Amino acid sequence: MKTGILGGGQLARMLALAGVPLGARFSFVDPSENACAGDVGRLIVGEWDERDTLMKLADCDHITCEFENVPARALEILADAGKPVRPAANAFAAAQDRLVEKRMFESLDIAVAPFAPVSGRAELLDALDRVGWPAVLKTRRMGYDGKGQYVLYSPEDLEPAWAELGGNDLILERLIDFDFECSITAVRSNDGQVRCYPLSRTIHEGGILRLAASPAGIPGSVQKRAEEFAQRLLAHLDYVGCLTLELFADGDSLLANEFAPRVHNSAHWTIEGAVCSQFENHVRAVCDLPLGSTDLRQPSILFNWIGRLPAASRMLETKNLHWHDYNKQARPGRKVGHATLVADSWPALQRAADDIRPLLPDPLDRLVGELTTL
Amino acid sequence: MKTGILGGGQLARMLALAGVPLGARFSFVDPSENACAGDVGRLIVGEWDERDTLMKLADCDHITCEFENVPARALEILADAGKPVRPAANAFAAAQDRLVEKRMFESLDIAVAPFAPVSGRAELLDALDRVGWPAVLKTRRMGYDGKGQYVLYSPEDLEPAWAELGGNDLILERLIDFDFECSITAVRSNDGQVRCYPLSRTIHEGGILRLAASPAGIPGSVQKRAEEFAQRLLAHLDYVGCLTLELFADGDSLLANEFAPRVHNSAHWTIEGAVCSQFENHVRAVCDLPLGSTDLRQPSILFNWIGRLPAASRMLETKNLHWHDYNKQARPGRKVGHATLVADSWPALQRAADDIRPLLPDPLDRLVGELTTL
Repeated sequence: MKTGILGGGQLARMLALAGVPLGARFSFVDPSENACAGDVGRLIVGEWDERDTLMKLADCDHITCEFENVPARALEILADAGKPVRPAANAFAAAQDRLVEKRMFESLDIAVAPFAPVSGRAELLDALDRVGWPAVLKTRRMGYDGKGQYVLYSPEDLEPAWAELGGNDLILERLIDFDFECSITAVRSNDGQVRCYPLSRTIHEGGILRLAASPAGIPGSVQKRAEEFAQRLLAHLDYVGCLTLELFADGDSLLANEFAPRVHNSAHWTIEGAVCSQFENHVRAVCDLPLGSTDLRQPSILFNWIGRLPAASRMLETKNLHWHDYNKQARPGRKVGHATLVADSWPALQRAADDIRPLLPDPLDRLVGELTTL
Repeated sequence: MKTGILGGGQLARMLALAGVPLGARFSFVDPSENACAGDVGRLIVGEWDERDTLMKLADCDHITCEFENVPARALEILADAGKPVRPAANAFAAAQDRLVEKRMFESLDIAVAPFAPVSGRAELLDALDRVGWPAVLKTRRMGYDGKGQYVLYSPEDLEPAWAELGGNDLILERLIDFDFECSITAVRSNDGQVRCYPLSRTIHEGGILRLAASPAGIPGSVQKRAEEFAQRLLAHLDYVGCLTLELFADGDSLLANEFAPRVHNSAHWTIEGAVCSQFENHVRAVCDLPLGSTDLRQPSILFNWIGRLPAASRMLETKNLHWHDYNKQARPGRKVGHATLVADSWPALQRAADDIRPLLPDPLDRLVGELTTL
């Protein structure tokens, strides 16, 4: 069972680590000869839309992706070769354009914040009238980790925002007040079975995910609503594999922000914390194997290592802390690893997280307090 | 952190799967170009005692083995190159010769069945007088999975036994009556820390391990005695890495059978069933990282797939059953995979094992009854 992955970063690496015990062997296409998935499979160095490069995946039984910005050309080449990608082109098209995505959410009765398209400077003022202040101006395409965004609190923000983002196709979205952010990861098989993981409560800073936790005291009603959103989205896209929908929760309101047609950072805790991880379930779905259980195994907190790894030694001595070094070079803002702390109950997990606070790098030592004082 | 492994079979494969998240990258030396560890690292095809082959490991920071019959020449070549193997040559020397091994056990006050060396046909009768009937005649070297052994119940077994084994250096051992077989896996760091896993209760048939379970109702006194044996052995050998000692338990008596200086089939359940698996702990010890916890995470039963894999589909649908396909070609008697079933308690695990009996291939469907009726 040979499986090809477009992309050779940490998501591809963790897909392979989960998929190899199922009998799968992995090939990765990545422009970098240092792509970290190369440690656990065959690395094909080349661009994602080069026919000669992609044809090296011709021996694969199944092909998937670790990122959403897959060139449409790549999907066409692989489809021509009889190697359609899972999930399919419609999911990538929707995920690549925030306007298309938000309109799809609306059409599926998945609640979203007010939004409006913005093509030119004049249209921006109209859009602000409709959406209301404060608002976020975003590029429709290629934004990630908080890049390509500008928050507008008052009219004097308009000029600098336009200087930075003008010239791109844009979308304006109402800036949402929320109690907390969370995301739901779900998996769908080719025959339409769907399973949802418990919600991940997420904490971002600087536009980057820093912490995720599950179950983290999220009411069952929120879980249920999120599952309904995910099920509608998966069915609409006739989706195969794992998908994550990011959400804002505020009182009784639950609003969808965006979705990722792939395994997702906020669910990395499922490796230890769920019966079958998001990585294994994605491989199962893509390779036409039965889905595994998405049930919680142990309450979990995920710590993201951004820029560089913290000192490993004392962390590795910590019982129930599971270490994930992506073997990537340190670089500011780069996701280079994570660790997952598990415990038998949420209060025990909160205590364990408090105990390791002195070991956590800034800003995690501070942010983890939002979880331990819940 | 580059790690070399002599051998590229399923043990090397699972060492890599556990070690990659620690930041290790793996190279394997194996004579077969199809060695299944090649799926998860660099495979160097060549003989284990060829200098040119072994020198390809010169870029590794640490080197270990997945099997005990390492040629002494290989260890010398690597030591000359400043790349000593962990565990060290003394452990392999003791494990490769049943007579040396048994004498070492005696010297360490690790109880063993009566035994005697046998070099010639005449000596065999003397040995039988000293050891007593029934007895097992074994080659001192290169026996595994019940090969190179002959059980002597009566004088008429002498001729066929000698026809099969005569000409080798032999050892005669008293055939032991026992309540059950078990084995203890322990890990030791370079600075002398030792941690022991809960005992694995093991069930063999045809000389091959079929099932292992933990905790499986083994009294704490047996665990304590087994840990003392393992600790003496590890300290005596100044051992680094994981080691397994196979034992016969009979009432109050606990006798050592043999040890393996490596990760061991009877502890594969630790991947899901312990906080830190034998594979991760072996890599941690070999790479000078802090040891992980050997505590039980969930009661576990291990099913060995011998010869060929059973149909995967219904197994993969079984909640809490974790699948391990080694990606090896089917062949009678060959270990091609395993699965581990876990549950929150031993009684719940017994019920779950009963539920999947109809899915289990012969003889596991029968043998598992020894565990579910305990």
